[in-house]
Amino acid sequence: MVERNGGHLASNLGIVELTIALHRSFSLPHDRLIFDVSHQCYAHKLLTGRDGMVFDRLRREGGCAGFCDGAECGSDPFLLGHAGTALSAALGMAVARDRLGGREQIVAILGDGSLTCGLSLEALQHVASQTNRLIVVINDNGQTIDPSVGSLAQLLASPRGGRHFFCDVHGFNYLGPIDGHSFAELIPTFAAARHASGPVLVHVRTVKGKGHPAAEADPVRHHKFSPLPEQSPYAAALGKTLCSQAEQLPNLVAVTAAMAGGTGLRPFAARFPSRFFDVGIAEGHAVTFAAGLARGGMRPVCAIYSSFFQRAVDNFFHDICLQDLPVIFFLDNAGPACGDGDTHHGLFDIALTAAFPNVVLAQPASPDELSQLLGLALQTPHPFLIRHGRNCGENAPLVQAIGSRALCPGMATVLRQGRQISLWALGQRRVEQALEIATFLEKDGIGAEVVHARFVRPLDRQQLQLSAGSGLLVTLEDHVVPHGFGSRIALELAAIGSPCRLLSIGWPFPIGFAENFLALERRWQQTPRDIFRRILQVHATRASQMNNGGEVPCRSE
Amino acid sequence: MVERNGGHLASNLGIVELTIALHRSFSLPHDRLIFDVSHQCYAHKLLTGRDGMVFDRLRREGGCAGFCDGAECGSDPFLLGHAGTALSAALGMAVARDRLGGREQIVAILGDGSLTCGLSLEALQHVASQTNRLIVVINDNGQTIDPSVGSLAQLLASPRGGRHFFCDVHGFNYLGPIDGHSFAELIPTFAAARHASGPVLVHVRTVKGKGHPAAEADPVRHHKFSPLPEQSPYAAALGKTLCSQAEQLPNLVAVTAAMAGGTGLRPFAARFPSRFFDVGIAEGHAVTFAAGLARGGMRPVCAIYSSFFQRAVDNFFHDICLQDLPVIFFLDNAGPACGDGDTHHGLFDIALTAAFPNVVLAQPASPDELSQLLGLALQTPHPFLIRHGRNCGENAPLVQAIGSRALCPGMATVLRQGRQISLWALGQRRVEQALEIATFLEKDGIGAEVVHARFVRPLDRQQLQLSAGSGLLVTLEDHVVPHGFGSRIALELAAIGSPCRLLSIGWPFPIGFAENFLALERRWQQTPRDIFRRILQVHATRASQMNNGGEVPCRSE
Repeated sequence: MVERNGGHLASNLGIVELTIALHRSFSLPHDRLIFDVSHQCYAHKLLTGRDGMVFDRLRREGGCAGFCDGAECGSDPFLLGHAGTALSAALGMAVARDRLGGREQIVAILGDGSLTCGLSLEALQHVASQTNRLIVVINDNGQTIDPSVGSLAQLLASPRGGRHFFCDVHGFNYLGPIDGHSFAELIPTFAAARHASGPVLVHVRTVKGKGHPAAEADPVRHHKFSPLPEQSPYAAALGKTLCSQAEQLPNLVAVTAAMAGGTGLRPFAARFPSRFFDVGIAEGHAVTFAAGLARGGMRPVCAIYSSFFQRAVDNFFHDICLQDLPVIFFLDNAGPACGDGDTHHGLFDIALTAAFPNVVLAQPASPDELSQLLGLALQTPHPFLIRHGRNCGENAPLVQAIGSRALCPGMATVLRQGRQISLWALGQRRVEQALEIATFLEKDGIGAEVVHARFVRPLDRQQLQLSAGSGLLVTLEDHVVPHGFGSRIALELAAIGSPCRLLSIGWPFPIGFAENFLALERRWQQTPRDIFRRILQVHATRASQMNNGGEVPCRSE
Repeated sequence: MVERNGGHLASNLGIVELTIALHRSFSLPHDRLIFDVSHQCYAHKLLTGRDGMVFDRLRREGGCAGFCDGAECGSDPFLLGHAGTALSAALGMAVARDRLGGREQIVAILGDGSLTCGLSLEALQHVASQTNRLIVVINDNGQTIDPSVGSLAQLLASPRGGRHFFCDVHGFNYLGPIDGHSFAELIPTFAAARHASGPVLVHVRTVKGKGHPAAEADPVRHHKFSPLPEQSPYAAALGKTLCSQAEQLPNLVAVTAAMAGGTGLRPFAARFPSRFFDVGIAEGHAVTFAAGLARGGMRPVCAIYSSFFQRAVDNFFHDICLQDLPVIFFLDNAGPACGDGDTHHGLFDIALTAAFPNVVLAQPASPDELSQLLGLALQTPHPFLIRHGRNCGENAPLVQAIGSRALCPGMATVLRQGRQISLWALGQRRVEQALEIATFLEKDGIGAEVVHARFVRPLDRQQLQLSAGSGLLVTLEDHVVPHGFGSRIALELAAIGSPCRLLSIGWPFPIGFAENFLALERRWQQTPRDIFRRILQVHATRASQMNNGGEVPCRSE
């Protein structure tokens, strides 16, 4: 079923016995199981009533989510999709329980990869001084997505090291390591953990992909299945173009945070292993480390999913933008993330980055253009962000329409002429939609211009001034509208004193998960036909106002 | 001089000998000293040509900054103002040096408090696998601002524990602990560190406030001097009102991240010690821990400076907003931060929070209103952010003008009537400015309405629609304009199809530091008279257009 619907396979197979043992040892939903990241919650979901039809539609409309979510089931006490949050949340719940006189056990289940994440380590230091009753299970399978990096993951290999670290340094009782596939070891250990005085760390060794020979043999490839390829065409373009640029530029290096596969860096890592840095689940460090590399004279490219980049906002501000360091960022998965749902959509990165000083922020409309933008970024002595989504692929006619003019920062491209309405679209899918909408409008006798905006910052002010001559400007973006691209255009129109009416189209939020992008677009009225209807409505209102009120005076200054 | 100009005292006095020894042992600017947080860089600045007049104007216009900044001097290789960034940056620079064949030594100087910060711990895990030449000095004075918390700070008390942690777990050579006030111990230790093979950790024990009897005796009170009181009137109001609410609400708890003094939580901490949580320099954990407390049934209030809250953006999104947990946040130091400069201004928090789901975001116009907003927040089952600045104090006439009507989310208050221009101001200082500007305008025969916006989200749509009936709407905010309050208003005006002209006033960025808020306002043309002149210009342009082009049609829907 996972192979069909998409989802995480190897990590779930690795903790089937562990999950059963937890369910046998604790009484749910009274006791609380908090799975870090929680993409390893499938066995837990099957044991808490989410089997049958619900699980058959895992990660699909009407089915169950791929992560724990309290909104779905009372046995999921917390929403978890980003790694490293479980221990902080569990500690908060444990302290609340202690104060309110509750009796429930609280159990946080962490992967060894979570120990690279600073948030887990901040929480780890805080536990022993705050509660005597908290159970932490480390599911040690030696893998994050790729093999785990960082000295703490390695520390677990030595039981004495683990005991010292958790026990002497952090004040936990340490039980283990035990075989995570053996009920004979798991059940008595959890019984002991229940009755310990003081927080307990249970160190469990598991085999990722257990029981599935192919997944056991190659857990990296079997980490996650997707109805879509692991790499989008954009990620593939990044891998290819980065390799060819790196041939010319010996100082070009690449940094990621446990996302080498998805972001397209694997070919670069294979070809230039000494110039590739995977820091593990440590987005903040990835960005500040890249800042140090740049200050030292290297030319770093940093590839992180949009939703995980949210964890490095201050690093981006404080270490990159304030010093105007020329680091290039690729934010993959900008826009809806489909099956992963609300923790993973990349719908906020414009709000979270574009207000900072010195930033250049672009979104290409084709994989080819991503390569062109990398070339431009390498010539630009400023922080340069390139966001790109996955809801799009190769589109040869679009590539041809865009042409191959040399890019400069802030250059928009008019793809279609029209005088009554101007559609400003950001990113391939939205450009495709705008072209389709323009065709619909033409059939209604309304001429619509289509502009491939390409840059959020700087904006193409000259083109915007021209487009503002139309009666209605429509922005389309794979982002929420408030504090995003549309609101930047609204401000710019206000700044030039344009009387042009503005309609901003973006995603509402939250939007949940679905089997594919089209399903999400249909659910949230984001198809070209839906948007066409909204435009038509505003256009009609405006036209009738124009007839009543006469010509709108030109107010450009 | 520090007592006069303001600045960090005790931490600087604590490392005078250490700094001299570093300068004697390494050759600057060839070798690189990277001071974490870098408010302990005064001796370093005095030794690198920034003495005399420049240092006499520390943190003042024309003088030197309170933190290291490469823009100021070649001996400051990196800008550092937020804690925990030094090790990541130093590692990046060390790797770059190794690749480029450089010979310079790179030395990161961390406080023991930096070990509570997850970013430092992410970096610590990454060092040994990446370079053989990096020196890390831990300046162990047992204090963050308050006495250090967290198990790692305590670990340093035991030399064996420190050796094990840095040496066995993280692969460092461990030298120390040594007396940080003894050249006889410091100089040979740094000589050994220079020639070690592999990264080196030098554990140095110092006394905060050394040589200044009062500062030695009470380093907390002598941590920082300010020409302003440590607490703003808002922070004082928070402390008082929180205590009185806590009497009624046994589940009310308070969380901070090493900012108990500045944010006003100290009275609460003194009165309800078991309900107060200072997690150390660990903003991410503070927020996710608060989410856990809320999920467990407590009512947490979390107080963090606006600029440091930037480190918890994803925690706020993922753990608070997505689950719609009723946690109340006080973001102190929203707006310009004066002497601390660009790393510390709170000019981005609207962009970084207001796009997320379920958020209520307010800014009071008086300390009294902060108390009222806390009352409202306690009745509101959603994430509730209250930002407030320090560039304002008690203003009885304003309090009287606002009145004491019960608040509800999204309620703006008209403080002065006027038909031609509407001034929407956010926060006390901007409301005061708006009232002053309205008086100037009146003298020019222009009637101006003044609206105390109070909420960024939800907006008072009804009032905005009324205000949009004027010809020109002006927004004033202590934030950058793009992606902030003004851009939210721009979007809203566009959404209702208003033809009202918009002028958005906010801070440019970067703006540097100055001795007081008025000096910053003067430098950046943010005084009421400056803003008045800009409004007058736009108003004149608009009026002449109106005369040429006739009445602008009403386009509200």
